[in-house]
Amino acid sequence: MECDKVTDLKNDRFLRALQREPVDVTPVWMMRQAGRYLPEYRETRSKAGSFLGLCKNPELACEVTIQPLRRFPLDAAILFSDILTVPDAMGLGLYFAEGEGPRFHRPIQTEAAIKSLGVPDPEEELAYVMNAVRTIRRELDGQVPLIGFSGSPWTLATYMVEGSSTKNFAKVKGMMFGRPDLMHQLLSKTTDAVVLYLNAQIRAGAQAVMIFDTWGGVLSPADFRIFSLAYMERIVQGLVRRNEGRNVPVILFTKGGGQWLEIMAQTGCDALGVDWTTDLDDARKRVGDRVALQGNIDPCILYSSPEQIREGVKRVLASYGSGSGHVFNLGHGIHPDVNPDRALTLVEAVHDLSPAYHR
Amino acid sequence: MECDKVTDLKNDRFLRALQREPVDVTPVWMMRQAGRYLPEYRETRSKAGSFLGLCKNPELACEVTIQPLRRFPLDAAILFSDILTVPDAMGLGLYFAEGEGPRFHRPIQTEAAIKSLGVPDPEEELAYVMNAVRTIRRELDGQVPLIGFSGSPWTLATYMVEGSSTKNFAKVKGMMFGRPDLMHQLLSKTTDAVVLYLNAQIRAGAQAVMIFDTWGGVLSPADFRIFSLAYMERIVQGLVRRNEGRNVPVILFTKGGGQWLEIMAQTGCDALGVDWTTDLDDARKRVGDRVALQGNIDPCILYSSPEQIREGVKRVLASYGSGSGHVFNLGHGIHPDVNPDRALTLVEAVHDLSPAYHR
Repeated sequence: MECDKVTDLKNDRFLRALQREPVDVTPVWMMRQAGRYLPEYRETRSKAGSFLGLCKNPELACEVTIQPLRRFPLDAAILFSDILTVPDAMGLGLYFAEGEGPRFHRPIQTEAAIKSLGVPDPEEELAYVMNAVRTIRRELDGQVPLIGFSGSPWTLATYMVEGSSTKNFAKVKGMMFGRPDLMHQLLSKTTDAVVLYLNAQIRAGAQAVMIFDTWGGVLSPADFRIFSLAYMERIVQGLVRRNEGRNVPVILFTKGGGQWLEIMAQTGCDALGVDWTTDLDDARKRVGDRVALQGNIDPCILYSSPEQIREGVKRVLASYGSGSGHVFNLGHGIHPDVNPDRALTLVEAVHDLSPAYHR
Repeated sequence: MECDKVTDLKNDRFLRALQREPVDVTPVWMMRQAGRYLPEYRETRSKAGSFLGLCKNPELACEVTIQPLRRFPLDAAILFSDILTVPDAMGLGLYFAEGEGPRFHRPIQTEAAIKSLGVPDPEEELAYVMNAVRTIRRELDGQVPLIGFSGSPWTLATYMVEGSSTKNFAKVKGMMFGRPDLMHQLLSKTTDAVVLYLNAQIRAGAQAVMIFDTWGGVLSPADFRIFSLAYMERIVQGLVRRNEGRNVPVILFTKGGGQWLEIMAQTGCDALGVDWTTDLDDARKRVGDRVALQGNIDPCILYSSPEQIREGVKRVLASYGSGSGHVFNLGHGIHPDVNPDRALTLVEAVHDLSPAYHR
């Protein structure tokens, strides 16, 4: 039964590269590949009524997850969802004000609020995510693997404490510096929730998982270790790493974390996401053969011409160099005003130009 | 005459530390020390009518520059001004919409617009800045040195092309990737303007200058070298380095540039600003004795208790270690909602705790 499922996967380049196994070409996907830059996404979203309505409707979430695969020869799909589903399920009341970022009705700012937080059962409060994963797997039909994901505990906590996006991180760092004990209680509970959430995604069919540490890069090296990395490590250690007869690779991505790749590589994860502020050749030297690397072209390259995009792809491929262990990606999510034809140029360029590195 | 002026400076710790000469205690100042967290600043600003009105009135700009020195035993004053005065003087029409960041009436988006840009005469179009420098020097009366500053060409160009603050840098990177020739024309002209501007500040009395590369950290390593660092180097090479019988040290600060300290140290500058994402011991190992270091406590530490602030200061001092070459500072501007008493705690802690490192 398990073996049947394994052979069902028609394109396993992405999973192989994450485990540094030989591949024919460098696999490629794009962060936020299911998103606003696609007219068909905007149409489905307007059908759903809202962004959250789209996340919470498994059929529509599946539809937008699949959309970029119809246009581009991508090597992986990523679950369409929001990074703040877990705090929402913990009772904070996620909502999106028009034209603004995410907000919570009930941010967490007191000891009592932290103590009263529950750890949600992912098959109950987050059933819509698991149903989306199952629906997408069925629709993908083994075409490419499906990536599940979560925000990192530190990143979730920043939104949970601030109640919205922030520039200064005044409240969450106020708690971190002023009441580190509370901060740890909040991070610990959130970590428990994320472990359950990602394991449920894996059991529902996610074939790799990625932890987005969007705000780890606003910490000092010491605070990053204590308040972000330690909890990501606890997650990596708590995950189901084998399912359906296959390994389930884990990718850690700290935006702005280029200085900390060595210590991130020691968490037991399989791969690190790298943004464009670090060259892949430098990153590879520093992490050795401990982990694979995912990244890292500046997404703004997609504003330039097809020739310039191909040149950019060439530079990133050359920077990683020969051998497996590279998953091509943008260094951050694709911007909403990008022309989809340019994304096609990028994906095709990766496949066209990378075989030389895999002989 | 020159020698008289030199002996006039009662506290030269800051200038000495920037040149890695022995000091009794570690000098300290705070980025945005003249700012909204001070009630007296808010009063003067409301008198001026607007932020730009304050910048353009030499007497009031002098008043707010001096205000933090009345409260705290700071070792340097920094000219109160805006980083976008140069593009304003180039004709772009700087304004501030209420509750928003800076904006330009006439952003630069075409080849014709770049070609028609003039390089302003700082004693004409920017006379208000030079008058502020002269007024402040007179009022300071040798108490501490005065720092002049400018935005880096890349940072100025981001605002000039985008027309406002930006999250994605779509337009300026669109130009950088799509029309690098235009980008270089714009950066080159802006560099000429910044050299004239900083030299005029030095001649008017600025005793050190700092280049704020607020947005260099959004570039890849290769693009940082080409589009930001190369122009900062041209500035450093073009500056008046001696005035009033003293050296005029130059500080470069790229926010998020912790990965590039080695190459920044090779520009010929005297010191590097370091944000809190890089430890000073690591930074010091990497730059050797080539430059001094300025920084780098997380400004959010000021939300915690006096004891926690002292602990934080202790860690940063210990991280730099023994010997001169350290100017204590925040890793970024002080936040507007900080209690001024906490800033006093920080400044006093630096003076209290640092003598051990200078025996």
